[in-house]
Amino acid sequence: MNPPAALLWRHLRVFQIWGSNTDVGKTIFATTLCKAAAEHYSHEKVAFLKPVSTGAPHEADSWHMRTYAPDIANDTLFQYEVACSPHAAAKLSGQAIPLDSAVLAEIRSHAARRAALGSGWLFIETAGGVHSPGPSGTPQADLYAPMRVPALLVGDSKLGGISQTLAAYESLKLRGQDVEAIMLFQDAQYENHLYLQDYFQPSNVPVYTIPKPPQRNTDDRAEHRSMGAYYKRLSSDDSMRDLLANLDKRREDRINRLETMNQKATDTIWYPFTQQKLLSASQITAIDSAHGDFFQVLSPKAASDEALLQPAFDGSASWWTLGLGHGNPKLTLAAAYAAGRYGHVMFASSVHEPALALAETLLENMRNPRLARVFYSDNGSTGCEVATKMALRAARLRYGWSANDKVGILGLKGSYHGDTMGAMDCSEPGVFNEKVEWYTGKGHWLDFPTVRCHEGQWQVDIPEALQADLGCGGETFESLDEVFRLDERIGSATHKAYEDHILRELQRLVSRGHKFGALMLEPVVLGAGGMILADPLFQRTLVDVVRSSGSQLFSTSTQHSLPDDSPSNTDWSGLPVIFDEVFVGLYRLGRFSAASLLGVHPDISVHAKLLTGGLVPLCATLASESIFAAFESDDKSDALLHGHSYTAHPVGCQVALESLREMNRMRASGDWSWAWRPSQQEPEQRQQCANEAPLVWSVWSSDFVDQVSRVAARIEGVWALGSVLAITLRAGAGDEAGSGYKSTAAADLQARLRSGGDDGSWTAHTRVLGNVFYIMASQKTDKATVRGLEKLIAEALLE
Amino acid sequence: MNPPAALLWRHLRVFQIWGSNTDVGKTIFATTLCKAAAEHYSHEKVAFLKPVSTGAPHEADSWHMRTYAPDIANDTLFQYEVACSPHAAAKLSGQAIPLDSAVLAEIRSHAARRAALGSGWLFIETAGGVHSPGPSGTPQADLYAPMRVPALLVGDSKLGGISQTLAAYESLKLRGQDVEAIMLFQDAQYENHLYLQDYFQPSNVPVYTIPKPPQRNTDDRAEHRSMGAYYKRLSSDDSMRDLLANLDKRREDRINRLETMNQKATDTIWYPFTQQKLLSASQITAIDSAHGDFFQVLSPKAASDEALLQPAFDGSASWWTLGLGHGNPKLTLAAAYAAGRYGHVMFASSVHEPALALAETLLENMRNPRLARVFYSDNGSTGCEVATKMALRAARLRYGWSANDKVGILGLKGSYHGDTMGAMDCSEPGVFNEKVEWYTGKGHWLDFPTVRCHEGQWQVDIPEALQADLGCGGETFESLDEVFRLDERIGSATHKAYEDHILRELQRLVSRGHKFGALMLEPVVLGAGGMILADPLFQRTLVDVVRSSGSQLFSTSTQHSLPDDSPSNTDWSGLPVIFDEVFVGLYRLGRFSAASLLGVHPDISVHAKLLTGGLVPLCATLASESIFAAFESDDKSDALLHGHSYTAHPVGCQVALESLREMNRMRASGDWSWAWRPSQQEPEQRQQCANEAPLVWSVWSSDFVDQVSRVAARIEGVWALGSVLAITLRAGAGDEAGSGYKSTAAADLQARLRSGGDDGSWTAHTRVLGNVFYIMASQKTDKATVRGLEKLIAEALLE
Repeated sequence: MNPPAALLWRHLRVFQIWGSNTDVGKTIFATTLCKAAAEHYSHEKVAFLKPVSTGAPHEADSWHMRTYAPDIANDTLFQYEVACSPHAAAKLSGQAIPLDSAVLAEIRSHAARRAALGSGWLFIETAGGVHSPGPSGTPQADLYAPMRVPALLVGDSKLGGISQTLAAYESLKLRGQDVEAIMLFQDAQYENHLYLQDYFQPSNVPVYTIPKPPQRNTDDRAEHRSMGAYYKRLSSDDSMRDLLANLDKRREDRINRLETMNQKATDTIWYPFTQQKLLSASQITAIDSAHGDFFQVLSPKAASDEALLQPAFDGSASWWTLGLGHGNPKLTLAAAYAAGRYGHVMFASSVHEPALALAETLLENMRNPRLARVFYSDNGSTGCEVATKMALRAARLRYGWSANDKVGILGLKGSYHGDTMGAMDCSEPGVFNEKVEWYTGKGHWLDFPTVRCHEGQWQVDIPEALQADLGCGGETFESLDEVFRLDERIGSATHKAYEDHILRELQRLVSRGHKFGALMLEPVVLGAGGMILADPLFQRTLVDVVRSSGSQLFSTSTQHSLPDDSPSNTDWSGLPVIFDEVFVGLYRLGRFSAASLLGVHPDISVHAKLLTGGLVPLCATLASESIFAAFESDDKSDALLHGHSYTAHPVGCQVALESLREMNRMRASGDWSWAWRPSQQEPEQRQQCANEAPLVWSVWSSDFVDQVSRVAARIEGVWALGSVLAITLRAGAGDEAGSGYKSTAAADLQARLRSGGDDGSWTAHTRVLGNVFYIMASQKTDKATVRGLEKLIAEALLE
Repeated sequence: MNPPAALLWRHLRVFQIWGSNTDVGKTIFATTLCKAAAEHYSHEKVAFLKPVSTGAPHEADSWHMRTYAPDIANDTLFQYEVACSPHAAAKLSGQAIPLDSAVLAEIRSHAARRAALGSGWLFIETAGGVHSPGPSGTPQADLYAPMRVPALLVGDSKLGGISQTLAAYESLKLRGQDVEAIMLFQDAQYENHLYLQDYFQPSNVPVYTIPKPPQRNTDDRAEHRSMGAYYKRLSSDDSMRDLLANLDKRREDRINRLETMNQKATDTIWYPFTQQKLLSASQITAIDSAHGDFFQVLSPKAASDEALLQPAFDGSASWWTLGLGHGNPKLTLAAAYAAGRYGHVMFASSVHEPALALAETLLENMRNPRLARVFYSDNGSTGCEVATKMALRAARLRYGWSANDKVGILGLKGSYHGDTMGAMDCSEPGVFNEKVEWYTGKGHWLDFPTVRCHEGQWQVDIPEALQADLGCGGETFESLDEVFRLDERIGSATHKAYEDHILRELQRLVSRGHKFGALMLEPVVLGAGGMILADPLFQRTLVDVVRSSGSQLFSTSTQHSLPDDSPSNTDWSGLPVIFDEVFVGLYRLGRFSAASLLGVHPDISVHAKLLTGGLVPLCATLASESIFAAFESDDKSDALLHGHSYTAHPVGCQVALESLREMNRMRASGDWSWAWRPSQQEPEQRQQCANEAPLVWSVWSSDFVDQVSRVAARIEGVWALGSVLAITLRAGAGDEAGSGYKSTAAADLQARLRSGGDDGSWTAHTRVLGNVFYIMASQKTDKATVRGLEKLIAEALLE
């Protein structure tokens, strides 16, 4: 496990030199900068690094540096003989082609060694243009992005050079790079520098120029003389000295800002869902940037020669949103394309391509014959409110209730659907809502059986309220897979007992005057409620009972003719069934739709978080035509009265489209097949079934889950599904409430992960829900990273 | 008024050829394509256009075309003698430099003439690289973006050409361009085409190659012979024929999709706030793209030789969000930078630069000493819920109410704060909420005096309920400016009467058992309620009375010691005052904060819509430290229980930062000074006060407002402030309710604007609120466009 790291030290000044074209003078600028730095900071303090170089040694850039700045430390990490693009040269070399991560690791090691020597400068020169491919073929702009070394862009002073410079600048910015300065030769004919100075002035990017070097001389000695004289002349040029001072200042400002931003945040930010009295500035993580699965976070206690930034695995997937890695260039380009094509455009009574294409893609991929309509909003909470408005209206009209009737939600204990007040009202009172002034839980929430692995055994725990009905306290299974084999479990005694229990409960509720307008569930896993894995058979049975018996049960009017409960493919019966898939959907649990794990089709389905791959807020509430029809009227005000200004904003829709396409592509091409079969199977066997994902699979290995479940002294249970791992810890002795949201039982484990892996080269940043520790991967996390995390967690639990 | 138009015709196939570098063979590809098209579609049908060309005629690209494809129609619009970048050549020419809009208009006219000839092909060749500046200095990628002509990118086959091609591609995508194909020469040494084919395969961008042309020959006749032979050989190459067929198909797909998407939307989209039974497919606008202030919309009834796309002024500023123009490249790049640097990162207990910098920028610019904290959410509605949660808690704790006490909002009739249920509950029953199942208005909403211009006279209308207290039905003013001179109006008889009335009302409400937890106002203008301009003196007085007498009034407990009502700079008194500036803030009404028009500082302020300049959803709720302190406790669950997954998403924060910086820059440099003084004043006078914006100003001229107000037969009143113009129309004879949301009185005017301006070259897309017609400009709309709209509106009203 070798996560990419950003490069930042307190005393070593690291800069990366990029070219806006080939042959724009990168090496000359590098040499000039090195010489200028040597003059002001003594030559031992200055170093030059060419990570990847092509061409015969005496033609290479480092040769030029060695010739004209012989005092400067000068290294090349990967040298290829053939003078062409590194990816081609690497192939032709016949040597093993280094992975991107290996190239980054080598650069970091090199820089760390320089940093250990104390203060100084390190200039890293790239090869060719910003997108020239590295040895593996990855364009350098992507390859080096995680390092976030401040960029110096050498502009193109030739004909057409304005265009090359602007395009290269934009490609760097797209990767979150800070371009600290543009440097280019003065050219009296084209005067590109004048244009560029004006252009970049509003963005506060300074443009520095030096005279053009002399014409290249074919005679080596004459060339040496004239270039020597050129560098000599430059040494009295103030321009590079100014640039160095400017770079030094910007770098100091960056470190300063990073080191003070937690205090500033403490003073100005009002944090979400956070008791700030209990959050000191030192507990706030300053995030410099993020790439792939890792934040690059400030290490506040780094010694003066240690790296200031450290990779931290984003173990909460940034509040469950991350799907395709931080800084994913495909998502960035999708966002930028939509921003350029539309900005935001009004959605009411109009239509644009990303919104329509996304609606079509969602409806197609859900494979739910009921769903026919897509309503857009901004987040899971608003999307659940929309779903609620939809369902309540449909139910009220069918059952003939008046607008004043108190109609509630039928749900499960511990459900949570978001923080807006309407969404809060969809949940029973609990720590997330009961202190909120206008909160009034509207409905009833049933207790339900849950699933966990405990001491190597998968078991379904039956809550007390059901135990009498079921005549037992639980059931055990060979594997999680078996728990989800609903076709086999339906018809069992447990199933019958679930049916009876649910029907009795509903009859009791209705007899007490309850009116319900929706069955609202988070299918399979209740997220914020504590990562509770529900027995899928119970959820399935609940839906079935509501649909088969609901019309008779819930109708309180005799005046209206009701559709019978015969199963319809598209019309709702009993109650509109809402699945809140905000957390569980879109491959989080391994399936496009978590509903498919239950084998039922909801009438309304809510999707957010992963929808945009983890980039910008967007929510889609999908509904059936029969729900939609409830709002059709000749009266404008009977419409669904909801609509945010940025409804269906093109940037979000385009990113979501790209994100769904990419995840579907990954599934289809077997990118997750390493996780589809138990680890005992041979790779060949796994290869065979690359395109057939099992119903139940997880990136967290079953061996690891088994191992964790046996740490009986500390663990109450564990489960893993898709990218999610959840561990319920036994409450600590000091815990007030024993368990639940207020417990601090999982904090030890969390703290242990934050202190990092074996070699201290990375840490893991996780969130806990009371005594539940959870961690999740993105859909891009590789096997090595997951196994590295497993090792860290196992060690922490066994300590 | 000459809005930029996208180019699309039913039969004419228009494509634009871009270079990823200079000297990559654009002209050779153009010639090859023209010849191939001529072969298959007859030469009369094929045309070549070089909008801007530099160099002596016999060196120009059109010369090459004329030489080797003499049958092809071949035009140049702007020819400059000096062979350098068009912006430099234009300067050197001594001729007047054409505006970007003039260049676009010429291209469109030219293409329209070709389209009038029937089916065919038109290839438009750009100059230099994608960012090479046009005559005005605007990079071509920006200059030509509004045309959205499908792009053919000529890749660079030379050393370093991979980088140049990828960077150019990204710069085009950033402008919302569809790159239909990449074309480049085969080069056996570098084989860039092989890399590019692999690279672009997942994005479905085909890469076409042809052999390299022969070495250039200094002898003209030899050159002519060898190039002639080259083109002859190419004519049997299938590659260009395939490309043409592919282009033709993609273009047909585009038109097909545009023409069917309204029907598809009718079938799959559930529209926000829309009674879809009353919305036929033909009423849905298909938006192809948008640039600046204009959508590019499908003209469904375009004749076969007429343009399929037409610019439509975005008169609702896309539901009040648009600030800096659609497709603004600065905002796009800001979004892309944050996406590349972070994606989204977890915000609870962490901090990142865009969120912190935006918080600091907002707090600084509000110039409100009370505000000290920033809470992020996703839209105005959630931000108002957050504000409500904040205020209710603060009030409840101070006044010692229990969590079960029914605490409401004190507001104004017609207020509206968003569509989530909690935000709906902050408003009195009305057409937007009363049919929503869980809606229960919580609070009381006072009637209030309103402002309008009527028959040339500015007047304040007093609602009936207040007339007895005031002893009159209204007041008249010389100008709107005078209405806002609160320093002069405070102390007047009206002010005293307002005070007395408000105090009496509050006493009456409290005596009836009302408990209030917040005073919540949209300062100055109530948006969704019908663009109602409130008398600022009344709103100001309301805040003052609540603050000065509130503690005594609202406290229902005698057990708690209350802070006295002495005015504090930072602590709240009476009630926490919430200003919902979602619509009115951030320069929409001409001022950074609309509160400054009232001269009071709220304790909580909500900002969204314009916050991101009109790109992505984001909301900031600002609050005072005394409000924040109400949530401090040793108990986690006393925290503010709100927090969306994408809280403070870096893309939104970075775009907002860029947007606020740009709007502040525009204000400081007097970009709006043309609108700051009445039109009677001379330009010189206006120049003098370029940096001093008056308190009250509007882009809509006072002459125009005066003119509209005198159309007495149709108009009840009109006002203009900042970028907003609102006209209340008299209800039509057929209107059921007479006025209000259900009225259709404004629909005629709306329909008239949709049918467009004089020459049919553009239309205006507006929204209405019942009998209120409104239109707003963005912060980038220029004077000519506003005056053009004024002319259109005046004509429509006088018809």
